[in-house]
Amino acid sequence: MAPYELFYWPGIQGRGEFVRLALEEAGADYVDVARTPGGMREMMKLLRGAGLRLAPFAPPFLRSGELVVAQTANVLAWLAPRLRLVPGDEASRAAALQVQLTIADAVAEAHDTHHPIDVALYYEEQKREAVKRAAGFTRARIPKYLGWLEGAIASSGGPWLLGADFSYVDLSAFQLVEGLSYAFPNAMRRVGRSIPKLRALRARVAERPRIAAYLASDRRIPFNEDGIFRHYPPLDRAVERKAKVGRGRSARKRP
Amino acid sequence: MAPYELFYWPGIQGRGEFVRLALEEAGADYVDVARTPGGMREMMKLLRGAGLRLAPFAPPFLRSGELVVAQTANVLAWLAPRLRLVPGDEASRAAALQVQLTIADAVAEAHDTHHPIDVALYYEEQKREAVKRAAGFTRARIPKYLGWLEGAIASSGGPWLLGADFSYVDLSAFQLVEGLSYAFPNAMRRVGRSIPKLRALRARVAERPRIAAYLASDRRIPFNEDGIFRHYPPLDRAVERKAKVGRGRSARKRP
Repeated sequence: MAPYELFYWPGIQGRGEFVRLALEEAGADYVDVARTPGGMREMMKLLRGAGLRLAPFAPPFLRSGELVVAQTANVLAWLAPRLRLVPGDEASRAAALQVQLTIADAVAEAHDTHHPIDVALYYEEQKREAVKRAAGFTRARIPKYLGWLEGAIASSGGPWLLGADFSYVDLSAFQLVEGLSYAFPNAMRRVGRSIPKLRALRARVAERPRIAAYLASDRRIPFNEDGIFRHYPPLDRAVERKAKVGRGRSARKRP
Repeated sequence: MAPYELFYWPGIQGRGEFVRLALEEAGADYVDVARTPGGMREMMKLLRGAGLRLAPFAPPFLRSGELVVAQTANVLAWLAPRLRLVPGDEASRAAALQVQLTIADAVAEAHDTHHPIDVALYYEEQKREAVKRAAGFTRARIPKYLGWLEGAIASSGGPWLLGADFSYVDLSAFQLVEGLSYAFPNAMRRVGRSIPKLRALRARVAERPRIAAYLASDRRIPFNEDGIFRHYPPLDRAVERKAKVGRGRSARKRP
């Protein structure tokens, strides 16, 4: 079979990393196209449509033969049964997608801490607002998302998110914790003691032979300040700012 | 078969509306639980876990017998084959989920125009930042998302997003256009001429007998300023503000 072709921005982990981790864990034959000569041109061609019935809105996307699949969670839902990274029954697949989409929401909020106003502007142009957004994210949203994952490991019976069966969402939870730990070490120290099961899961994923080999390789791009998880000290310190408003008020529903 | 049970905040369309539209179009037997006596208590119990293997992170979620499925796009991916709202082949289902997740991204950005800083605060507490975020959203993001949908109808051969076959993502595209038209009539007037196929799709969806009956019923909650799509005149006018920065700069990639 021809190798899977992953298309994603070279130079950052970003959303592509969730797909890379699945391909690496499975030992799949794949090409990270945009990191090969001429690959960026190929990726931009596909983003412009290139005769596809459905063009991707944005990377990452995956090509397998004639099929081009985009949107991270959709790519994983399509790949996972082929890579044996999800149990075969429909209920487990729905549970996995539910977890993956919740992780995706957390990732989008992590992104918006450094881009709260406009993705077309630089962080430095929206830094004041970024500090405000990071305060709420680190104080309330990180504990809420990670607490939900901790609860999911507990209620499934563990040790993995879906219970006894390892699946791609364990890789994604690993990546979320890694990314948040890079970007917000200060906030993560505060939340650490309340998520023992999730920390144990993170450690077990890191020790899986293929993941350990991948993390040690140059295929694993280091975290950096062009990606989604960025370490900006003013944002990491935002959790310590005294909340002027909203403190003590009960959390409002989010539509 | 017992009716499907939809759980969502009563009083707003929100993300639950994408599920309601699918259930209504299919003529499915369902209960909008939180709008029935005692329903809110039942919803909150499930949100706290209630012995589930996997609790929802947030509404909407759907219960069918023993199964509880959460995350809007996941609920729809699970429901659509049962409601005959997606073609049966795997490529079409992946394409549908890809479209739905892209619409979900647009919906999340629409939400963040009125809550750019913190979901735990009121709009009025982050109004200055909201005006800034709405400027970028209406100027660049609405045309980009709706232009992508327009292109998808064209490249699929139309008249629907997946081509000849009507599917649940046509309902979701309808709802996105309706919501944006309510919240940002000014911006939508500007973009209108460039999306003729999408406007035609919106009109055809509105004329489908069951959708027309639903929209005329009291089951359709009117748009309001507690939901995701809110009409705040300062945000709708933001598109006219002269951009002080970022104008003329090429769009930067979004990780």
